[in-house]
Amino acid sequence: LPRTIRITIAYDGTDFAGWQFQTGQRTVQAELEAALKRITGEDIRAVASGRTDSGVHAYGQVVGFRTESALSAYVFGRALAAELPRDLVIVDAREASEDFHAIRDVITKRYRYVINDGPVPNVFARAYCWQVRRRLDAERMHRAAQAWVGQHDFSSFEASGSPRVSAVRTVTEFAVHRREPDEPDAIWFEVEADGFLYNMVRTMVGTLIEIGRGVRPEEWTAEVLASANRRVAGITVPPQGLFLMRVHYADPVADLNKPVVLG
Amino acid sequence: LPRTIRITIAYDGTDFAGWQFQTGQRTVQAELEAALKRITGEDIRAVASGRTDSGVHAYGQVVGFRTESALSAYVFGRALAAELPRDLVIVDAREASEDFHAIRDVITKRYRYVINDGPVPNVFARAYCWQVRRRLDAERMHRAAQAWVGQHDFSSFEASGSPRVSAVRTVTEFAVHRREPDEPDAIWFEVEADGFLYNMVRTMVGTLIEIGRGVRPEEWTAEVLASANRRVAGITVPPQGLFLMRVHYADPVADLNKPVVLG
Repeated sequence: LPRTIRITIAYDGTDFAGWQFQTGQRTVQAELEAALKRITGEDIRAVASGRTDSGVHAYGQVVGFRTESALSAYVFGRALAAELPRDLVIVDAREASEDFHAIRDVITKRYRYVINDGPVPNVFARAYCWQVRRRLDAERMHRAAQAWVGQHDFSSFEASGSPRVSAVRTVTEFAVHRREPDEPDAIWFEVEADGFLYNMVRTMVGTLIEIGRGVRPEEWTAEVLASANRRVAGITVPPQGLFLMRVHYADPVADLNKPVVLG
Repeated sequence: LPRTIRITIAYDGTDFAGWQFQTGQRTVQAELEAALKRITGEDIRAVASGRTDSGVHAYGQVVGFRTESALSAYVFGRALAAELPRDLVIVDAREASEDFHAIRDVITKRYRYVINDGPVPNVFARAYCWQVRRRLDAERMHRAAQAWVGQHDFSSFEASGSPRVSAVRTVTEFAVHRREPDEPDAIWFEVEADGFLYNMVRTMVGTLIEIGRGVRPEEWTAEVLASANRRVAGITVPPQGLFLMRVHYADPVADLNKPVVLG
């Protein structure tokens, strides 16, 4: 009887050409499906909550797949822990309802973008943040970002050519804060929404930095949103600062703040 | 007139075969001296506060060198910022008294060792901590480490064959703590002393983990110290968890908690 397994994975995006399978490229999907093939002998199709681009990281990407195997979810987890490469780890594995679908069933997703604006580059975070030379005003960016909370048409922040039916999304939280006192040169941008358009977080951050630098007024976020025009918004900031933090599902079993870890 | 310049550098030790020049190897000293040659045309000998081994990192390594160049320390700093590779950054550059010597003049040095004892490997810290599978008791290790504070013969923690005249050193602080609430799976071991024997920090941490696991009693730290026998102590833990944090000099100008950064 085919079953559905739901796993949570973390990966360092540095050496991956993103999530999605591409011939001749090292992708997360290809590594995961190859490991599942070694474990079960089956050609398993892994479905993630959404793609991540080349260089983008994940703390809590969720993946569902169907299998004929009789292995328990726990044994799947242990086997994947042994089979996966060092930059791709399994955090959680569990049985899902048979009709669980990792894309369709998403309630909200949470992303973090990390900027380091210290005068000296952080030599240990080169692959995990975007380094800017000019100091940014985090509180100003936080206030400005509140204009985006709620249900809006986010066309201004969608990469051109994206084939979406609707650009309306609901942002439930947008928090910007400097990591005082431990990392005073790091700024975290944390965004939660019921869905994200292509490059939406990176373009929102690219818009906020103009406000953080003082080049634009705080009210500019509302103007950019109202324009529904990608050319009005800021740049798309680079991928290595972006982390998919968590995906929240309606399934009450799957809805845990902290995934059950494989001890 | 020859002058002495004192710089502070940070490096990610992952891709270096340690500090010291070795033919055919990529070392921090070789990269730095090559950059100084490009800047000044001189064959400059760079003297660090101490060697770091292959894989060991530095937040605040101090280096002194003599030059005939008329460039100001500030200009040296800017030029090095431009010339150095991405995993080696300059944090500070200043004039030193002509007889400043980066090894001889050390008052204290501070190291940090980082262990991750979470159930899932931290995919983003693979090169910056030692990952252990069994949970450790940080408070127990902290209490046990206090037996080492003060002036003692640390022969038990010196790698064999090291040609020291005396193994007596003064440890001024040894703090072990779990990084709650932000990183509950990370433990920091912070040690300050007037000098360190070869592999001393890594062997001290290797001794403490046996106490943190409950395999040895808290009093074992005093026993190992009193034995003055390397074979009694624990393992030498791997290099990638070790960071040279700061070097403190008598020179009042150089004695800053936070180095002046190159803006």
